[in-house]
Amino acid sequence: MPDLRLGVLGGGQLALMLAQAASSLGVSVRTFDESSEAPAARITDHRVGRFDDHEAVARFAEGCDAVTCEFENVPASTLEAAARHAPVRPNPTAFAIAQDRALERGLFASLGIPTPTWVAVASPEDLDRAIEAVGFPMILKTRRMGYDGKGQCVVRSPEETRTQGAALLDSAPGGLIADRMATLHSEVSVIAARSADGQVAKYPLCQNVHRHGILWRTHAPAPIGEDAPEIVENARAAALRVLHAIDYVGVMAIEFFVEGENGAPLCLLANEMAPRVHNTGHWTIEGASTSQFENHVRAVLGLPLGSTAMTTPEAIASMYNIVGRVPDRGSLLEVPGARVHLYGKPPRRARKLGHVTLVGTDARELSRREKIVEELCAWEV
Amino acid sequence: MPDLRLGVLGGGQLALMLAQAASSLGVSVRTFDESSEAPAARITDHRVGRFDDHEAVARFAEGCDAVTCEFENVPASTLEAAARHAPVRPNPTAFAIAQDRALERGLFASLGIPTPTWVAVASPEDLDRAIEAVGFPMILKTRRMGYDGKGQCVVRSPEETRTQGAALLDSAPGGLIADRMATLHSEVSVIAARSADGQVAKYPLCQNVHRHGILWRTHAPAPIGEDAPEIVENARAAALRVLHAIDYVGVMAIEFFVEGENGAPLCLLANEMAPRVHNTGHWTIEGASTSQFENHVRAVLGLPLGSTAMTTPEAIASMYNIVGRVPDRGSLLEVPGARVHLYGKPPRRARKLGHVTLVGTDARELSRREKIVEELCAWEV
Repeated sequence: MPDLRLGVLGGGQLALMLAQAASSLGVSVRTFDESSEAPAARITDHRVGRFDDHEAVARFAEGCDAVTCEFENVPASTLEAAARHAPVRPNPTAFAIAQDRALERGLFASLGIPTPTWVAVASPEDLDRAIEAVGFPMILKTRRMGYDGKGQCVVRSPEETRTQGAALLDSAPGGLIADRMATLHSEVSVIAARSADGQVAKYPLCQNVHRHGILWRTHAPAPIGEDAPEIVENARAAALRVLHAIDYVGVMAIEFFVEGENGAPLCLLANEMAPRVHNTGHWTIEGASTSQFENHVRAVLGLPLGSTAMTTPEAIASMYNIVGRVPDRGSLLEVPGARVHLYGKPPRRARKLGHVTLVGTDARELSRREKIVEELCAWEV
Repeated sequence: MPDLRLGVLGGGQLALMLAQAASSLGVSVRTFDESSEAPAARITDHRVGRFDDHEAVARFAEGCDAVTCEFENVPASTLEAAARHAPVRPNPTAFAIAQDRALERGLFASLGIPTPTWVAVASPEDLDRAIEAVGFPMILKTRRMGYDGKGQCVVRSPEETRTQGAALLDSAPGGLIADRMATLHSEVSVIAARSADGQVAKYPLCQNVHRHGILWRTHAPAPIGEDAPEIVENARAAALRVLHAIDYVGVMAIEFFVEGENGAPLCLLANEMAPRVHNTGHWTIEGASTSQFENHVRAVLGLPLGSTAMTTPEAIASMYNIVGRVPDRGSLLEVPGARVHLYGKPPRRARKLGHVTLVGTDARELSRREKIVEELCAWEV
């Protein structure tokens, strides 16, 4: 059995965790990043280079059985340069769509997947159109390059729209989208995988809470499933439609808003997709039979997918991000059952430095442990 | 928080799995091995050198926060060379004892831990003594350097003892021990950890089946615990006595025979100890809250131990070794819930190439999956 080699464009924590999963399968990993200090560098054959250095990218891809990405904003020309030497999965179409919020929304619409009311904004005139068609409160987002709450602004009046919108438009050559902000009941995400031969597998729904635009906590299976199982089914079915529609190979995440009033969930609105493993899926390392990282490695290398069931049938999981500062390591390691992940990144405000997962079957005991973790890992931006 | 660096003498699969666990904690790992192709080399700062090259060992140890070993037969002089530059854990005493079966037996005896009836054999005259004092069937084992069934022979008569014993004695400068072979009910092992400040944690008892002297399967928690809970308690208590007696820091394994007749367990006999993580503990990666690998990393680096409870309270685990040949990877990956580990070693008869772990709560379902794995992974030597 020949050894397999996976190439990963990007060397951040997602590449690190892909490499950890690959290592267990005896798969070697080569990473490519502009920084020699990238988190994944310690445990991979790490190559340093610029993404627009197509010769370096070609040398990186040569000898890999497949190449994948740990972030969506990989330039199309970089993917092409890699694809001349190794299969790139998922395919460039997935990246093109995921890199542009308007294209994402177009895809969802074409598959009958509801989204927030929105319009594209390419000019100040379009801002007026948004005021008419979308209404308030409104959130303006750059079509390209935004993440973790960056490249967005919330506006509550025509005046704010015209002034803040014009400023954001100036900063964003690709234009903006304007979303009607839903009355949020909750936020959920689906992590799903599709193999090279079309086999699909979906994880239990994740329920997510963000703070300052950054993921704070994920619960899985999503508690909303107890009151509104149809929300779970609709979200997971939507993800499968997307996977098939773009012939996707690998793990993908789709984030949804659940719009609701007076505490009752009303409907599911697809917000965005990520053509990669996702922060809301980190809990799968200890909480599921096969982690999202392992399933992504399996899928892109043409291997069969693994079970996405919870580790044991009654298991529930919580994950908390460690952001901006790392708590006292001793205290963190002493939280009973805490599964601690530290990415080896220098601390910086609003930077994701690690995460902690709790897995158990007793909701009350889990909740007790959550309080300890929440206090230890408290962060502001 | 400064980054921690762990040095591991040896680069085999135990070092590989230590490095995988360390990676999740943001700890970097440096390994030292005679081979550049050692399994751990892909994911560590791997140094190639001979263990008797004390300058190379010193350079390896310099800059490590602690140094540990992934195999017990590290020469004392190598440990000393490393210890001049970094704390070596566990301490050299643990290695000295674990490297010599007679010293192991002496330690067990000093702590009131029952062992098989045995005598030391340094000369052909001692073989006569063994025939008198130990009886048949008898197993002769080299005091030093044996593993996976090597350096042993079973004898059933005085004549076999004198002839095969003499041959084995010739091959073993350190001498032999002669054990009365127990009527085996089962074999169990305790994996236990002790931190630098004396905190201890023990895993659920493991029940093990060997084939041709090589571990075939481990079940945890040990099924014997349902009929004979005192066996479980005695084994775990014995392990704690050993940990404290030699001021051990890290994870240790002690293997026991359970002597029994007519299907009823009679008593626990301590066979040997390993001053390292152990094959019978691989199931802890998915089956326990904190793996043996992570607890060893935590302990030797002076960090608090993590919970050794099963991942969820009702979970049960099985692990099968992959020996000599790797089954069709696709088929292996398709076994529902199979947690596959491949070490990246070239196949060779009787060589450990990987393992598969199953975790679940339904004994019957687990058994069904076990049959598939057993068939896929069948091996002969």
